Amino acid sequence: MPNKMAEELMAYELYYWPTIQGRGEFVRLLLEDVGTDYVDVIRQPETDGGGMDALLAVVADSGHFAPPILKDGDTIVSQTPLIMDYLGTKHDLTPSDEAERRDALRLSMLLADFLVEAHDVHHPLAKEFYYEDQRDEALRRAPSFRNMRVPKFYDYFERTIAANAGYLVAGTLSHADFSLFQVIEGMRYAFPEASARLEPDHPGITALHGTIASRPRIQAYLDSSHRIAFNEHGIFRHYPELDG
Amino acid sequence: MPNKMAEELMAYELYYWPTIQGRGEFVRLLLEDVGTDYVDVIRQPETDGGGMDALLAVVADSGHFAPPILKDGDTIVSQTPLIMDYLGTKHDLTPSDEAERRDALRLSMLLADFLVEAHDVHHPLAKEFYYEDQRDEALRRAPSFRNMRVPKFYDYFERTIAANAGYLVAGTLSHADFSLFQVIEGMRYAFPEASARLEPDHPGITALHGTIASRPRIQAYLDSSHRIAFNEHGIFRHYPELDG
Repeated sequence: MPNKMAEELMAYELYYWPTIQGRGEFVRLLLEDVGTDYVDVIRQPETDGGGMDALLAVVADSGHFAPPILKDGDTIVSQTPLIMDYLGTKHDLTPSDEAERRDALRLSMLLADFLVEAHDVHHPLAKEFYYEDQRDEALRRAPSFRNMRVPKFYDYFERTIAANAGYLVAGTLSHADFSLFQVIEGMRYAFPEASARLEPDHPGITALHGTIASRPRIQAYLDSSHRIAFNEHGIFRHYPELDG
Repeated sequence: MPNKMAEELMAYELYYWPTIQGRGEFVRLLLEDVGTDYVDVIRQPETDGGGMDALLAVVADSGHFAPPILKDGDTIVSQTPLIMDYLGTKHDLTPSDEAERRDALRLSMLLADFLVEAHDVHHPLAKEFYYEDQRDEALRRAPSFRNMRVPKFYDYFERTIAANAGYLVAGTLSHADFSLFQVIEGMRYAFPEASARLEPDHPGITALHGTIASRPRIQAYLDSSHRIAFNEHGIFRHYPELDG
């Protein structure tokens, strides 16, 4: 079946900002874990089709709104939780039961909602203003995020993990667990003090983070120079004054 | 088949804040359009199981994070776009083709992203502060929303509609079109001046809004006292100073 062969050999193409983890990192983690071939297109040299012009071109031409955008042959998927659901379905990280599949997608969507709040805490006014131009407003927003929103989310995920034998869905590994891992990673980077204060009361979250971190391909990826380091251009930013 | 009969006769139960349109309105519109039996549970008298205690109870007991929550017998669904996908699948408003189904869900998710921005424009700092306590910050955020974000979204939806024969997905009606209708409704209420300025350049959006508005059951619902009016407790709020 040459067609099927060709399809299976074709590498996934991920289109995302080349210098931050951001939403693309959720997809990268899943691609790394399943050990499949993929090209992080925009990080390639321009001579190989990479660079920011290629990102602008795919957004203009694909009919999709914003990166991350995943190409799998002729199939194009965007919205991070939908990419996770799509890849999970192909690589046994999306439950086959319909209610459980919907649950994994729901939890990846909830983690995507959390991500917006984790971003807006340092950019409460507008994406196009510098942090320094909305720092006072960020300082007013941060206590609500740290003391009310993060505990509300962490408590919820802790209860969910306790009810699902150490995972988020149906007592078994799914793409949603990778999304939770990445959120905890980001929180440890951006809010180390709040994380250190909250995590001891959320042992299920910490354990599930550790479960993902110790998977061999994830461990190798986290240790590699291939992984983009957290930085102050991404979604999770370490501004100590916002950590309280 | 008594079991199937019982299942078909059981009314959907929607759990959502009882005094605002909010995210619940997307679900209400779809339920109204398909003409199915449903109970807007929290709006019922406490003696009939309604009231805010019932909302707190379902959030505590269901394992779901936040309303809107839909119960369909033993099936519980949350996250508005997933509820739309679920109901659409049961009532022929979700495409059966997998790529088109994913596209409708993606667009409902994108509209849900827009909704967060439409809310945060009047609440840039925190949900628990009054508008009056973050009005200055809202005034700084609003121009970015009006002049950059809304046009970016409207341009995108206009292009999408032009490429899909007047609808958002695959040239035919889907749940995503109802989500777009509700966003335009909200924008007309909250930002009448910005809407009047933008809509003439987005005839596809306006026409699709009209297509939904003129569906008989939607028209009847919009004219009914049953529909909660927009107000300054909801997601879309009319503060003229933010409309520029």
